[in-house]
Amino acid sequence: MHTLSHICRELGLAYDGEDKIIRGLNTLKDAETSEISFLENSKYVSQLASTRAAAVFITPDTVHRLPEGVTAIVTETPYIMLAKASALFTRERLEHTGTPAAIGEDTVVEEGSYIADGAVIGERCHIMPGVIIGNNVVVGDNTVLYPNVTVYRDCVIGSDCIIHAGTVIGSDGFGFATTQQGEHVKIYQNGNVVVEDDVEIGANTTIDRAVFASTVVKKGVRIDNLVQIGHNCVIGEYSVLVSQVGLAGSSSLGRNVVMGGQSATAGHLTIAPFTTIAARGGVTKNVDKAGVYGGFPLMEHRRWLKLQGILARLLKK
Amino acid sequence: MHTLSHICRELGLAYDGEDKIIRGLNTLKDAETSEISFLENSKYVSQLASTRAAAVFITPDTVHRLPEGVTAIVTETPYIMLAKASALFTRERLEHTGTPAAIGEDTVVEEGSYIADGAVIGERCHIMPGVIIGNNVVVGDNTVLYPNVTVYRDCVIGSDCIIHAGTVIGSDGFGFATTQQGEHVKIYQNGNVVVEDDVEIGANTTIDRAVFASTVVKKGVRIDNLVQIGHNCVIGEYSVLVSQVGLAGSSSLGRNVVMGGQSATAGHLTIAPFTTIAARGGVTKNVDKAGVYGGFPLMEHRRWLKLQGILARLLKK
Amino acid sequence: MHTLSHICRELGLAYDGEDKIIRGLNTLKDAETSEISFLENSKYVSQLASTRAAAVFITPDTVHRLPEGVTAIVTETPYIMLAKASALFTRERLEHTGTPAAIGEDTVVEEGSYIADGAVIGERCHIMPGVIIGNNVVVGDNTVLYPNVTVYRDCVIGSDCIIHAGTVIGSDGFGFATTQQGEHVKIYQNGNVVVEDDVEIGANTTIDRAVFASTVVKKGVRIDNLVQIGHNCVIGEYSVLVSQVGLAGSSSLGRNVVMGGQSATAGHLTIAPFTTIAARGGVTKNVDKAGVYGGFPLMEHRRWLKLQGILARLLKK
Repeated sequence: MHTLSHICRELGLAYDGEDKIIRGLNTLKDAETSEISFLENSKYVSQLASTRAAAVFITPDTVHRLPEGVTAIVTETPYIMLAKASALFTRERLEHTGTPAAIGEDTVVEEGSYIADGAVIGERCHIMPGVIIGNNVVVGDNTVLYPNVTVYRDCVIGSDCIIHAGTVIGSDGFGFATTQQGEHVKIYQNGNVVVEDDVEIGANTTIDRAVFASTVVKKGVRIDNLVQIGHNCVIGEYSVLVSQVGLAGSSSLGRNVVMGGQSATAGHLTIAPFTTIAARGGVTKNVDKAGVYGGFPLMEHRRWLKLQGILARLLKK
Repeated sequence: MHTLSHICRELGLAYDGEDKIIRGLNTLKDAETSEISFLENSKYVSQLASTRAAAVFITPDTVHRLPEGVTAIVTETPYIMLAKASALFTRERLEHTGTPAAIGEDTVVEEGSYIADGAVIGERCHIMPGVIIGNNVVVGDNTVLYPNVTVYRDCVIGSDCIIHAGTVIGSDGFGFATTQQGEHVKIYQNGNVVVEDDVEIGANTTIDRAVFASTVVKKGVRIDNLVQIGHNCVIGEYSVLVSQVGLAGSSSLGRNVVMGGQSATAGHLTIAPFTTIAARGGVTKNVDKAGVYGGFPLMEHRRWLKLQGILARLLKK
Repeated sequence: MHTLSHICRELGLAYDGEDKIIRGLNTLKDAETSEISFLENSKYVSQLASTRAAAVFITPDTVHRLPEGVTAIVTETPYIMLAKASALFTRERLEHTGTPAAIGEDTVVEEGSYIADGAVIGERCHIMPGVIIGNNVVVGDNTVLYPNVTVYRDCVIGSDCIIHAGTVIGSDGFGFATTQQGEHVKIYQNGNVVVEDDVEIGANTTIDRAVFASTVVKKGVRIDNLVQIGHNCVIGEYSVLVSQVGLAGSSSLGRNVVMGGQSATAGHLTIAPFTTIAARGGVTKNVDKAGVYGGFPLMEHRRWLKLQGILARLLKK
């Protein structure tokens, strides 16, 4: 929590108007009245009118479109400023607060695991050797963390989950703003990961924490080994992600979506419930209608099969 | 070990005939006389006649094809029942039996590693910090486990092996039965992984344990980093799996098969000895004849090269 | 450090001339006057003339091309002999020398981490639980190693770096010589990894140590989760590697190269500075001119888009 004046002083920026208490950063669409947002990409300019943000990092040429009551923080580089401001809201990686973790009844915490202060583990869980659980992580009941799993601070794991060895939950999303000189400024990832109940996750999979808000894995999902889930993805109930799937940031899957082995999504795309993406399918656009899709770029799977037939005939000529 | 009557009671199913001692579950083809099997997919109906299984979860319409002496457990959902029964045969994840691991002469077990009760480690091995070895794991002589390797219980690793950091051996295969409502019931993976002698495995690779029996990595195999090997795969002697290869469950590779980087297999396929799959090749059918293959769907590599030539010419038009 | 006579005796090989002190192995091009090199692939025969190597494993038919002063070690299998010799130069995996690691001021080393003798950690670093740091590793200032990271011995990590959980730095490159019988002889990877300043690396990524010399990740690079970087790669300043990228051995990227998700390179290729490889692009040849490329085999991205248009039209016929 910082004052707007403090933040702007840290960034070397000026603003007009009253000071405000700022609790964090967010997109124009999702910002609360105590959050700062930003506009760099003109694609989002229409979101200005309805934003509830306390203040917005904004370029001089769009500042006139800001609604009344939202403070303009004018800069030629809003995204860089967002990145710099994000550092002010990051929490300590590992705190020793003196509030020991709360461990539920009949939960077994094996020797060689580490549970940070403030974590809350439910009943009948099994925390195996080499597991590292960060501050304030919440784990439900009957959940198993296999060896060498890492759960970063502030993440939430439901009940009846199984997480296999070496999996990482809550690592920083891949976020940075690049300067004109080509250098990268880290955007601190101040969100978390929420894994709901009855989820099984394979070995050496990675699920990144959200930049703002949460990356969400909903109830009953099954995730295989070596799967990558980028920041701010939402995986619908009972979806199935086969090994080596890669979901780019902000992918949103409906319930019972099946992603075949090595399939992937580009960022910010939505996949309709009950859709199947065949192995190696590359999702390059929103999938609005349930069905079976494959290929890269993505098409209906039966079209992909037809295309393979056409190519085979070309080869025979 | 359970009685058939106990299992059926747990699942709420009835059967006719004498009670039997059941030691586990298996496929129709491989079941022993003390194992239960199942038939859901009509593709396997021909295996009914010769099964040695004690009992079979079977639908009403195929029950008449069961040979005499094999007990029918009639259900509309044999695969779901298999899944539910599998939970009865799973072992504890980590037991504290009071039988300490046996460590061979001149083996160095570094501080910060964990070896569970009942494990047997050979001579002149090196168990580095952060390694977790489960109950009853057997490791041969001269084998090196680099930091943060996890070996799940009951797996077997040969002599003269090198396993690099972060690799996971014996995690659960990706197995579940899906209900008509789209929920997933875990099939407990009660098999193991057997890695034979003189195998080197790279970093952060994952090898899943078998659902029944063993996933097998044969003598002299070389596996690179971030490779996925599904449950019940068999990797032939001296085969080479380059980084990011993904082998779906029950893939069977002959000796000296080479899988190029990011290549993959669909499940239940066989690849002939001395075959090379080029980088990114997607094995979509059995490879019966040794050669060099590539593309997706798979074709002879020289045909794939020809296809690229044809496509390049189309582009020039 | 061995004498040439000792090495040849160990390998059962003869040579003519004076004995020499040998400090290691290297390529013809890079060998110093105290190193042994090898020639098996005729592609490199032109490098014989200018090599500074002390001695060369060489076949009888090319021995006459060796310059004066370079000792010939004649063998029908130079590459196998290189592999066998490499074992003589490998260091102990983990030494207990009694020289404790040096830890800089205000660096926090959390409980449950392991720092081997001879390591040197700078100031204000954070070494989290489950981190394993090998002998003689050097880490700069302000660097964060998240849980369960493994850094193999002799690697170097700069200042202001962030390495996420489960990542492995310095595992052995995928190197072996294969005998005519199809067996593999390990080539010990006696180089290291150098990560320069201000590098962020995601979770469960793997960066292999060099066979000779160093794998290098230059200043300001950003690497996502589950990325594979083979031995002897050089990643130019401020380059960006998105999740599941795979770089084969000796790939050389200029500064500000962007590799999209799941893209990959074949070995020994160079990519010009400021080049973008689209998601899934497969780099099959050197990229000499900056631009946007994609597809597999690689082509200009606009050509790849055009090709997809042509294929879509074929489908409509």
